[in-house]
Amino acid sequence: MNKVLSFSDIDAFLVTKSVNISYLTGFPAQDAWFLILPNRSFYITDSRYTLEVKSRLKNKSELIEYSKSLSDSVLDLVSQFKVERLGFDPKDISVSLFERLRKTVRRKAKLVFVNSPVEQLRMIKTRKEVQKIDKAIDLNLKCYEYLKRIIKSGITEREVLLKLERYVKGHNAQFSFPPIIASGLNSCFPHARVTERKIRRGEPIVIDMGIDIDGYKSDLTRVLFLGKISKSIKDVYSLVLEAQRLAIQAVKPGVLISKVDEQARNFFKDNKIDKFFVHSLGHGIGLEVHESPVISSRNPGVLKEGMVFTVEPGIYLPGKFGIRVEDMVLVTSSGCKVLSRKF
Amino acid sequence: MNKVLSFSDIDAFLVTKSVNISYLTGFPAQDAWFLILPNRSFYITDSRYTLEVKSRLKNKSELIEYSKSLSDSVLDLVSQFKVERLGFDPKDISVSLFERLRKTVRRKAKLVFVNSPVEQLRMIKTRKEVQKIDKAIDLNLKCYEYLKRIIKSGITEREVLLKLERYVKGHNAQFSFPPIIASGLNSCFPHARVTERKIRRGEPIVIDMGIDIDGYKSDLTRVLFLGKISKSIKDVYSLVLEAQRLAIQAVKPGVLISKVDEQARNFFKDNKIDKFFVHSLGHGIGLEVHESPVISSRNPGVLKEGMVFTVEPGIYLPGKFGIRVEDMVLVTSSGCKVLSRKF
Repeated sequence: MNKVLSFSDIDAFLVTKSVNISYLTGFPAQDAWFLILPNRSFYITDSRYTLEVKSRLKNKSELIEYSKSLSDSVLDLVSQFKVERLGFDPKDISVSLFERLRKTVRRKAKLVFVNSPVEQLRMIKTRKEVQKIDKAIDLNLKCYEYLKRIIKSGITEREVLLKLERYVKGHNAQFSFPPIIASGLNSCFPHARVTERKIRRGEPIVIDMGIDIDGYKSDLTRVLFLGKISKSIKDVYSLVLEAQRLAIQAVKPGVLISKVDEQARNFFKDNKIDKFFVHSLGHGIGLEVHESPVISSRNPGVLKEGMVFTVEPGIYLPGKFGIRVEDMVLVTSSGCKVLSRKF
Repeated sequence: MNKVLSFSDIDAFLVTKSVNISYLTGFPAQDAWFLILPNRSFYITDSRYTLEVKSRLKNKSELIEYSKSLSDSVLDLVSQFKVERLGFDPKDISVSLFERLRKTVRRKAKLVFVNSPVEQLRMIKTRKEVQKIDKAIDLNLKCYEYLKRIIKSGITEREVLLKLERYVKGHNAQFSFPPIIASGLNSCFPHARVTERKIRRGEPIVIDMGIDIDGYKSDLTRVLFLGKISKSIKDVYSLVLEAQRLAIQAVKPGVLISKVDEQARNFFKDNKIDKFFVHSLGHGIGLEVHESPVISSRNPGVLKEGMVFTVEPGIYLPGKFGIRVEDMVLVTSSGCKVLSRKF
């Protein structure tokens, strides 16, 4: 936990984002803040939660029940421990909360912006975390086997969704986000909503879904086909698969992240369809479906062992159809392990 | 929509909160901003969403696809329409986004904090909105009838949850938040999580749940009892019901909101159990489960016709049990209509 303090010249850091508090304490946070000092840490919440937090907070973190306001509690701790430079993440605090902190805490300590220190820790997964992600992926892949069995001509997207939901619940799991089940024309929207549309033979059915087991998440996309498909759909599908293969091939520690995106994008450029690839190549995933690192041409970072992210090239032909394929990879010491597929 | 501009001395307002954008446009927003000008409005999003937004954006709002960044698009519009004072809600924008706006937009327009102008509109429900809320309540009440049938001695909280989920799905609806099913000792946590605990006769089972139909939400709590219950539980239950009755009786336009909370709190004080009532009395509800107005002793506002909120006194006896009863009321022209119960 002390690592959080090493990212900047600060002697305390205030965690304001729930999922980061969960990551650090193991306890799902609601209406809580978490203060990290060099040798102690404090879970600050109100009376609605203290009884339960007390009985479940397992690490050496101490519990503070605030009565007046969160910012007053922080002021008390900052005074008590003579904090001089209090860090917080400007992404994770609203302007109005910041104004309140300024009015209270600033009298004692300097407020310092620190960008994503907890996210930087979260980016590198432990073996235990990868095992949890693997569990989510396992069920996700089973879902696709199930979908292949139940999708028949005439079934609606919504009916598929309902069956899929029941299947996931039956495995004591939940979705990590509302699934996309986009058939025919609907597939040309990267973020299509599920509709009452009937699925027909010869159409691509793009299914983008994720599983959440104990907080850790998967996110995969497969395209299913019913019956005979046209050459134009087949061709685009092959190009997307090849773009994905090239991108995954480039993954290993030390490689520029932008380079991975570039592999897919340049391949599409060579095939004159890059303007239909309208999003970045992928995103980190773990406790959140979208977390660091984003796999895009604008990310200046490099790949590190332990990162887990999606590789999801897609081609969307307006008024025709769309194809996206998404897998999850782990950066290993020597290269890359595809967690969601045997190549 | 122009009403939003009337809450402060501004000639444009930037809506950054998704649910507020949904409220104003009818289109669920993700990664989007919405700019309100006196006679025009702009839905700003990126290329992943434009195709779909274009086909679904129904009112006269115009669509802007940004390529560089959201803040650059806002700068363009601010320049084009000669905006001098751009309002935004400091609650709904992070410090880092604000810093980016400062660096771009501030060159052209003054940035003005405006607190919750859209929430102020949302607070007063139209008849159509109340109808939608009523639908959610109807199903919520059916759920309690269902729960009474299926809860038997020996069933676990988790099993009850799974059955309840299937029931709700079967009605093409979803929960508005993860339900609380807290039996026996678990009931002394106002925000208990569902456990593997077996439900036994003679215990209170606090069930706090909500339904979401088309975005509008319900939130109700009932206490179910199996078999014979002890006098102490019965006594607390009666006190909670009476506190709720007194609070609801006070509801009518023009009454101080703090007064409604006070009715319940003073009644508990008279019975020397007010220290076990650890939260505020209720909260507004509509597109969000918790929205304005909060029904607490600290809210200086008054009740207005069209407000919909919960009234949910609760008593939590540590190490023993907890009782909470929650209903939803609508402020009418002459008083109050309890939407979720016949009194």
